[in-house]
Amino acid sequence: MRKLLLALLLCAGAITVFAQKEDSAFIKKISDEILTNGKAYENLRHLTKKIGARLAGSPGMVKSEQWGLKLMQESGADKAWMQECMVPHWVRGGKDVAKAGYIPLRSEVKKGPYPTFINKDLDVIALGNSIGTGKNGISESVLQVNSFDELEQKKDLVKGKIVFYNYKFNDTYINTFLSYRDAGQYRGQGPSRAAKYGAKAVIVRSMSHAADNNPHTGATRYDSAYTKIPAVAIGLRDADWLSEQLKTAEVKVSLKTNGHFLPDTIGHNIIGEFRGSEFPDEIITVGGHLDSWDNCEGAHDDGAGCVQTIEILRAFKAIGYKPKRSIRFVLFANEENGLRGGNKYAEEAQKEGKKHILAVESDAGGFTPRALGFSGSDEQFQQFLSWKELVAPYGCTEFVKGGGGADIGPLNRTLKTPTASLNPDTQRYFDIHHARSDVFEAVNKRELELGAVNMAALIYLVDKYGL
Amino acid sequence: MRKLLLALLLCAGAITVFAQKEDSAFIKKISDEILTNGKAYENLRHLTKKIGARLAGSPGMVKSEQWGLKLMQESGADKAWMQECMVPHWVRGGKDVAKAGYIPLRSEVKKGPYPTFINKDLDVIALGNSIGTGKNGISESVLQVNSFDELEQKKDLVKGKIVFYNYKFNDTYINTFLSYRDAGQYRGQGPSRAAKYGAKAVIVRSMSHAADNNPHTGATRYDSAYTKIPAVAIGLRDADWLSEQLKTAEVKVSLKTNGHFLPDTIGHNIIGEFRGSEFPDEIITVGGHLDSWDNCEGAHDDGAGCVQTIEILRAFKAIGYKPKRSIRFVLFANEENGLRGGNKYAEEAQKEGKKHILAVESDAGGFTPRALGFSGSDEQFQQFLSWKELVAPYGCTEFVKGGGGADIGPLNRTLKTPTASLNPDTQRYFDIHHARSDVFEAVNKRELELGAVNMAALIYLVDKYGL
Repeated sequence: MRKLLLALLLCAGAITVFAQKEDSAFIKKISDEILTNGKAYENLRHLTKKIGARLAGSPGMVKSEQWGLKLMQESGADKAWMQECMVPHWVRGGKDVAKAGYIPLRSEVKKGPYPTFINKDLDVIALGNSIGTGKNGISESVLQVNSFDELEQKKDLVKGKIVFYNYKFNDTYINTFLSYRDAGQYRGQGPSRAAKYGAKAVIVRSMSHAADNNPHTGATRYDSAYTKIPAVAIGLRDADWLSEQLKTAEVKVSLKTNGHFLPDTIGHNIIGEFRGSEFPDEIITVGGHLDSWDNCEGAHDDGAGCVQTIEILRAFKAIGYKPKRSIRFVLFANEENGLRGGNKYAEEAQKEGKKHILAVESDAGGFTPRALGFSGSDEQFQQFLSWKELVAPYGCTEFVKGGGGADIGPLNRTLKTPTASLNPDTQRYFDIHHARSDVFEAVNKRELELGAVNMAALIYLVDKYGL
Repeated sequence: MRKLLLALLLCAGAITVFAQKEDSAFIKKISDEILTNGKAYENLRHLTKKIGARLAGSPGMVKSEQWGLKLMQESGADKAWMQECMVPHWVRGGKDVAKAGYIPLRSEVKKGPYPTFINKDLDVIALGNSIGTGKNGISESVLQVNSFDELEQKKDLVKGKIVFYNYKFNDTYINTFLSYRDAGQYRGQGPSRAAKYGAKAVIVRSMSHAADNNPHTGATRYDSAYTKIPAVAIGLRDADWLSEQLKTAEVKVSLKTNGHFLPDTIGHNIIGEFRGSEFPDEIITVGGHLDSWDNCEGAHDDGAGCVQTIEILRAFKAIGYKPKRSIRFVLFANEENGLRGGNKYAEEAQKEGKKHILAVESDAGGFTPRALGFSGSDEQFQQFLSWKELVAPYGCTEFVKGGGGADIGPLNRTLKTPTASLNPDTQRYFDIHHARSDVFEAVNKRELELGAVNMAALIYLVDKYGL
C-alpha cells in the first residue's frame, strides 16, 4: 500500500513537473513571438498618429472604433463585433484661456512700479465635463487654498472669487497612484465644494510631478446641490508662479472656457472573440479602453492597453494556440467620462448568461511590467499565486492582492467575476497622464510588448487550469 | 530555566521588532528626503548640459572632475580629494564618415538603370580605441557576415574587404544585458578576427534594439597578433538597408575615420568621505564612473550613477545621519576605455590597509530600480537577503546573487571586498547606451532618485550591522 502511495505521489510529482515545463515553454514561445514579431507598437503608432484623440462622441471615437474592429478581424478573431452603447458627448468647444493680471487701482497708477505680469498667459485646460465660462469669460480675484481644510477655514472669503486649489502631488509615495488618489479629490470634488461658498470658478493644480508646465485634465463631478461653475487645471510651473505672486499681491485671473455637453450619442465597445474548444461558454475577458481625453494622443492612457489586448489575440493565433475557454478581447468605450462601455459590457454579459471566469485590464500605461494584481476569493488568490514563478521571468515579479480596472469593475459587481490588472511601473505615468505629452513617443516598444507578454501568460494559465 | 529562556527569547524578539521598525523608519526618512529635496536631477542637468561629454583625457574630463570635487564638498563630505591616475587618451579626431556606393563598371554604364544609392551617407561612429583610416580613407567592397561562424566559413573571401558584422541584438532576452553580452563580442573581437583574414576595416551593427538610426560606440580590443584595422558601428536602419542592398548588389563603402591615441594623461578618481564614528577604518564604497563616451552627454551612462552617489552623501548629511563606519563616495575615472580609475582605487586601498567591507556601484542607467545584486560569501548573502523586506517598498523587490560593477571589480579581486550593484529596469538602456541619444532628457527625475534611495538603504543597513 505504501509503495503504491509512493508511486502515485511520484507520478503526481512527475506530472506537475512536466506541466510546469510545458507551461514554461509555452510562455517562452508567447514571449518570443511578441518580442520578435510584435505588432503592438506599430498599431499604437497608427492609433495615436493617424487617429489621435478619441473622446466619447468625437470623430476620433468613430474612427478608432472602425480601426479596432478591422484590427480584431485581421488579428484572427473568430468573431468580432461592435457592442452599441449610448455615450456622453462633452466637447471643449474651443481653446481654454487664462490670463493673470495685477490690476492697479487708479490711485496706485500714479505710484508705480507695478507688477509686470499684466495679462500673463497661464497654461490651463478645462476639466472634463465642466461647464464653460460664457463668452464674456470670468475675471475675478484668486483665492488660494492648499487643501479642503483651508477652504473651510476661509469659506467666508470665497464668495465671488476664483478658488485656486494648490494641493501638491505627494512626492513621498513610491506608488504614484497613491499620490493620484490623494490629489485627485480636488479635481473631482473641488468645483462643487468651492461653489457651495459662492466661488465663481476653480483652478486646480495639475495632478502630476512632471518637470514641465503641461496642464492635466480629467473628469470633474458636480454635486447637484450646488451651482455648476467652470473649472480648469493649471500646469505646475504656472501653479508655482501664481502661488508665489499671491504671497504679495492680489491677482485677478481672466478665464475663458467653452465646455458643454451635446446630446448623448452612440458609441461602441469593440469585441473580438477567440472561441474555446472545450468550454466555449466560459469566458475570459481582457481589455483596455479605446477612448482618450481630447488634448492628447492617449498613447499610454489607454492606447497601450488596447494594442496589448489585440497583440495577445494576434500572438495566440500566430503560434497556433487553441484555447479551451473563450477569450474576449475588448476595447471599452467611454472610460474617461462615463464608463458607459464597461457598464454595457456587464449588462450584456448578464443577459447572455455565460460564465465569466476572469477579466483582466491594462489601464496604467504601457510601462515596464512589475506586478499582476488580482481580486477574487482567497482560494482563487492562492491559485493565482501558484503561477507567480512562471510569469516572474517576464517582468511581473510580484503577484499582489487587489486587481481590476474601471472598465471591468461592473462585470465584477454584477457577475462576481474575479478581476486582474497589469501593474506596470508607475514612476512616469503621471508625468503624461491626461496631458498633451501623452504621445506615442513616450512609449517604449519593449516595455509595451512585455505588458502583453505578462497578461498573455496569465490568460493562458487561467484558460488551461480554470479558476 | 525554561521561563528565563522564554523571557530571553521574547526579549530578543522585541529587540528585533524594535530594530526593524527603527530601520524601516530611517529608510522612509531617507526616501522622503531624496524624493522631496533631492538634488540629483539638477546636478545631472549641470553635468550633462554644462559639461557634457567627458571621455578620459578630454577637456570635459577635467571640468567634470572639478565639478565633482566641489559638489562632494558642498554636499557635506568630511574630506574630499582627487586620486590621481594615468588615463589613456583616445581621440576621435574628427567626424566619422561612411558613404555607400554601387560603382557600375564601364560596360554596365551603357546598360543602366543603376542603383540610386551612390554616395549614400551611412550613420556610423568609430569604435572607441580604434585606429583611423588615414586621410585618404578606405574604399572597399563589403562582405556581410551574420556571425563569427559565418566569418570562418567565408574566410577566403575576407581579404581586402570591409567586413560587416550584422549580428542582431537578441530581442528574446528579457534582461537586455544578456543581449548586450551576446552581441558585444562583435564590437570587442570583431576587428581583429576579421583582420586575421586580411580585412581592411570593419563595420559592426550597433548593439541596440532602438527604433532609431543612432550608431552606438564602445571600446574595441585589438588582438596584438593581427594588424589593427579601423572599425565603426552603424545605426540599425542603415545596417538593415546595407544588408538589403547586399542581397542583390556589390556594395562599396568609403570610410573615413580619424581615431588615434595621444600620450597617456593625468585623470582622477573623485572621492568624498563621510567618516565613521565607531569603526572609521571600516570602509563602505559607493560609486559610479565619471567618464562618458565622447558622442553623448553620458546621462544614463553614467552621469546617473555619479549624481546618485553624491545624493546619498547629501541626504545622509541633510537628515543628520552619523555613520558608524566610513563611507566613501567615489566618481571613478576612465571606466569606458581603460578602467584605470577602478584599478587605482583598489591599488591605493591595498596600500592604505583599511578594511573595505562593501563596495556598491550604479552603472546600469538611471532607470526605475528593480533589484540589488550581491557578490560575497554565502553567509554574507544570507545577511543581505534578510534586508530585502526593508528595501523592497522602494523598488528593489528582488535581491539577487551576483552584483558589482566594472569600477569596483578590482577592489573585489585585490581585497576580496563583497560587491553590490543597483539593477534598474533594463528595457530602455540599450536604446541610448553609447549613442548620441544618451542625454539628460532621457532620464526621469523620480526613477533617478529612487535609485539613490535603494542604495542608501543598503548602505545604511551595512553600516549599522556590518557584513
